[in-house]
Formats: sequence, structure tokens, C-alpha cells
Amino acid sequence: MKVRTESGVKDLRAVWFEKGKVMMIDQRELPHKLVTVGFEKYQDVALAIKNMTTRGAPSIGAAAAYGMCLAALSGADLDKAAADIKAARPTANDLFYAVDYMYSCLKKGSDPVKEADGYADMIVDKCTKIGEYGAALIKDGMRLMTHCNAGALATVDVGTALAPMRKAWADGKRFFVYVSETRPRLQGMQLTAWELGQEGIDHSIIPDGASAYYMEKGVDLIITGADRITANGDFANKIGTFDKAITAKHFGIPFYVAAPISTFDFDTKTGKDIEIEQRSEREVTEIYGKMIAPKGSPALNPSFDVTPAELVTGFITEKGIFAPKDIKKVKQ
Amino acid sequence: MKVRTESGVKDLRAVWFEKGKVMMIDQRELPHKLVTVGFEKYQDVALAIKNMTTRGAPSIGAAAAYGMCLAALSGADLDKAAADIKAARPTANDLFYAVDYMYSCLKKGSDPVKEADGYADMIVDKCTKIGEYGAALIKDGMRLMTHCNAGALATVDVGTALAPMRKAWADGKRFFVYVSETRPRLQGMQLTAWELGQEGIDHSIIPDGASAYYMEKGVDLIITGADRITANGDFANKIGTFDKAITAKHFGIPFYVAAPISTFDFDTKTGKDIEIEQRSEREVTEIYGKMIAPKGSPALNPSFDVTPAELVTGFITEKGIFAPKDIKKVKQ
Repeated sequence: MKVRTESGVKDLRAVWFEKGKVMMIDQRELPHKLVTVGFEKYQDVALAIKNMTTRGAPSIGAAAAYGMCLAALSGADLDKAAADIKAARPTANDLFYAVDYMYSCLKKGSDPVKEADGYADMIVDKCTKIGEYGAALIKDGMRLMTHCNAGALATVDVGTALAPMRKAWADGKRFFVYVSETRPRLQGMQLTAWELGQEGIDHSIIPDGASAYYMEKGVDLIITGADRITANGDFANKIGTFDKAITAKHFGIPFYVAAPISTFDFDTKTGKDIEIEQRSEREVTEIYGKMIAPKGSPALNPSFDVTPAELVTGFITEKGIFAPKDIKKVKQ
Repeated sequence: MKVRTESGVKDLRAVWFEKGKVMMIDQRELPHKLVTVGFEKYQDVALAIKNMTTRGAPSIGAAAAYGMCLAALSGADLDKAAADIKAARPTANDLFYAVDYMYSCLKKGSDPVKEADGYADMIVDKCTKIGEYGAALIKDGMRLMTHCNAGALATVDVGTALAPMRKAWADGKRFFVYVSETRPRLQGMQLTAWELGQEGIDHSIIPDGASAYYMEKGVDLIITGADRITANGDFANKIGTFDKAITAKHFGIPFYVAAPISTFDFDTKTGKDIEIEQRSEREVTEIYGKMIAPKGSPALNPSFDVTPAELVTGFITEKGIFAPKDIKKVKQ
């Protein structure tokens, strides 16, 4: 992804390997400062995953792969390293997948750096293809909308929902993106708007509740990411996605979901089978540690909602765009 | 309204006249502190409307009436005072209505304090009646939802959307209220949740984007206020209302709008004729003076949206409940 520094525009990934170190953009410092950090020990990489220096399931997976790479280079016990890195976050499937993948490669004697780079490149390659397929949907002069952050920060580089926008912009198309701020954690405002700003893509942040207002005025295309897509085409994504999909349907606006095929979970029949993580009410009632709610008023904080397949126009994947009725073809 | 202070439960209004001063609860200090402020000049009252020391269409109306009262008591030019006070906010019909009402009373030589007090009492009386009609819609065990603050703070006392809840709760009915936080200014979180907490009414704050999630789980009744209702039943209310009305329609949930008849503007044909106030982007990008957005990312901050009549189940007024098709009867 492009980032603007004092010494000019650079091309950075969210996570990469350089001169014996695992490097990361410290996402906790965004959007206020661009800070990169480097780690020489796998234990420090595990800590960086745990304390959310890097976040987003694919970026966590890449960081874990590079952590295993450091463990191998330093001659550490690979079983202990795998256990330590897996313990960093409790739920991200990519974390376990990446550690297991690297473990088996390393046990076979593969080159640690080459394998970890390959893992990261594979993610970026999928996102690049999503960008190419999705960019065809974007025409000059369009007004787009997105929610939360399905960008390069979350996926090593390029992004999922943001991939088509990057590609279309790079191709010279000019359009405008409404970035829904995404309460309570403001990933839309703080990460997506930051990424679009770095790329120079026209955008404005809007409150989540301003969706209908702008959709009525004219939004041509909505693209979000997904955390999990079930066999019938229902999908879980950041809370607020379902509201936008209903409102888009009301106005007849195309609603696309960009995700790699690894996000499709064909073992789960419908969205009703997805368990929704309920996070701390303090994410709603406090901001930067300051209490903003009345003392004694509880808050509810479901992290995701599930949008039914009938509200989805299409899924943008690395294999092409699929309507919900054609979702079985994704598997083939 | 009930307020809990260190010296016990008190009964306060949002705006009142006392010892030559227009007194207000400073709503910008809520929910952290209950602060009351007093103004001796009409210009300061106009400023207090502009900077949202008091807010909510009827409270703005009462403040404007008391502002005209101060203008008359000080011997100020009433035409200039009327123009100055009307210029404080662009959207609320009550502001213009109250100023015009007081202007004609004062021109006839009526007592300024008595007329302004009468205007405020009239609002409270209407809200009390709205509460009585609306309470009939609330059954034991229901789950309600509201947006922004159409409570006592917004309407001198009692409230519009909250009036039926106050009355039903006082009658011994027990129910639960989802309070949408209402970004960017968080009036739902900071004012409505505060009011419900003061009354002891069961509630939880939710992010604005969690509406569909909870409506799908089961919401029985939605009640919001309105800033202006046009001749065809379209209505302007806080940004985010339109999204909720669309989502309510999707799930078949009754959507009621509680407002006194003074909020109906029969001279304006449809919602398309309502000018929407665009407020500073800093209300979105900063919180308590701290920048939370990326430098250089603009934000859009429309203060209201307009919900079309077809999404409204009924208008709860001081004369009863009217379906949008019967809106002409409101006038009679």
C-alpha cells in the first residue's frame, strides 16, 4: 500500500521481513502516526499479535508465519514456538492455520524466509485478483460506500473491499467513497479513511447513521468485507453491515462483498449458525479511556451482524464475482 | 423531569425563567455533570440555542420564547431580537413558531414573563397528553427502541418520544428500551440514557449500526421524535432516523413519531422542501477536543435526515394518534 512519509511516498505492507527482522506497521498508532516496528525474536512477534500492533485475520496470519520463520532461523524449539504464537489471540483462524502451515514446511526443511514470504505473497495475490475483478464494477464518477476496514492493513497489502477501489483508482478512474465510521471501534474512520487518504482516493467519513441520507442522494455501489460467509451466502461482518444492506436494498443499490475463498465456510449452512462475539461494553461507553456514557447505563456491543444472502448482489473473490445463487461455484 | 442529585431526587425543567434570568440545564455537560446556567440578555439565549446549551425543538422553542421575553423586558428592538433569535438554528420549526408567537403577544402588550411561561407550560401540557396517548401502545414485557433524545431535555419537560415511556413506567408497566447512541453528538447515549436512568427505566445503549441486529432479534415498537413534519407526513429528525425507519419496515416493526402539533408544518408540502443543516465536520472527527480521524480525511455531518411518510405507522400528538393518511385531521 502507498504511505506518505516525510521523505515521500513509499510502498509498504502491513507485515514483512527485512534484514533478519519481522517488520510491521504499528496499527495502534494510526491514524495519527505512521510507525514501523521490527522484531528479532518470535516471542516479540507473538506479543505484537497479542497487543494488536498488527490486526486483521490475514495480517495476523502473515505475522504468525514470519514469527515461525524467526523461530526457525534462531534454532528455537519449533513446537514451543508454535504453541507460544498460537496462544497470542484466541479466535483468529488464520493464526492457527499459518502456524501449522509453517510448522509443516519447516519440519520438511524448507527455507524459513522463502516460505513465510510465500505465505504473505499468497494473501496479497488473492487480494490483487479481488481488486481486478472488483474494479470492473467501478465506473468513472461513481459514489461508493464501505463500512469498517477491509483494507491493506488487515490483509498484508491491497485489501479486500478496498482492493477494487485501489485498482480502479490506479487505472485512472475517479470516484468518491463514503466511509462509514464504524462505531464503536471506528475502524472505518481510523483505518479505511487513512488508507484511502494515503492513496489519494477521494473520500469522506460519515456517521454510521448517515447511510440512508447519502444513499437516497445517490450511492452507486457498496462494497464491504466479510468475516465469514456460510454455505447459503449469508455473511457475518462488522456490526452495522446488516443495516447498510437493508438500506441499500430499499434504494436498489448494488451491495457487494469482497473476500477470498478462504472466508467461505461451506460447513456452516446459514448465518443463523454463526455465533456472534459480544465484546466489552466499555468499547461503547468509553473512548481513549474517557467515560462518555452516563454512569450506570449499560451498553450492548455485538461485534458482528449477519446479513442474509438475499441482500447481497455478489461476492467478489479471487476466482471472479459470484451471485449468492451461484455460491456453490466458488467451491469448484 | 426527575433528576438524582446528592441532596435527593429533584424535579427540574430543561428551560425556565427565574429571578430575571432564563435558566437552562447545560446539556453539553451531561451526562457527567448536572449544570444549570442563567442568561440575562436575549443575545446570550440565541447563542445558547446556537451552541446547543439547550437543544431539541420544543426546548429551543421555549428558550426562544424566553429570549423574546428578555428582549421585551430590556426594551430591545423586537424585530431585531426576533431576527437574531430565529437565525440561531435553521431547521427547527418550533424556533420560528415560538418567536412569532411571542412577537405577536408582545406587540399586543402582553406580560412577557407570563406569556413565555405560558408557552413553556403549554409544551409540557402537550407532552403530558402525548405521554397518555402513547402509553397505550406500550405493553408489559415489550422491547422498545428510540434514537437521539426526544426526552424532557428536548421538550422543557416530560418529552415526546420518551413521554409514553415515562407514563407507561409510572403506570407500573415494565419494558426495555434500546437507546441508539446517535453519533456524532451522542444525544442518545448521553441524554436519553441519562434520562431513562434518572427515571429508573430499564435500557441499554447500542451503537447506531446495531439496529438491524436487535430488530431482527425482536423489537416491538420504535418511537422517535421529530424536528419538523411536512403536510404529506414526511418528517425531519436526527440523522440516523431514516435508516432505522427503513430497517423497521424491513422487519415489520411499528414505527411511531411523537410530536406536538406545533411540529407539523402544513405550509411545507413534502420533506424534499426541508433544508438540512450541515454541521461542522469536527463533531465527527473530534471527541472532547481530541482528533480521532486521520489528518486530511474530511467528514460529512448532516444534522438531520428526512423519513418519508410511508415508513411511519403513526404520529402521537396531544390530540391523539394519527396515521400519515389522516394527517390532515391533525390540523382540524
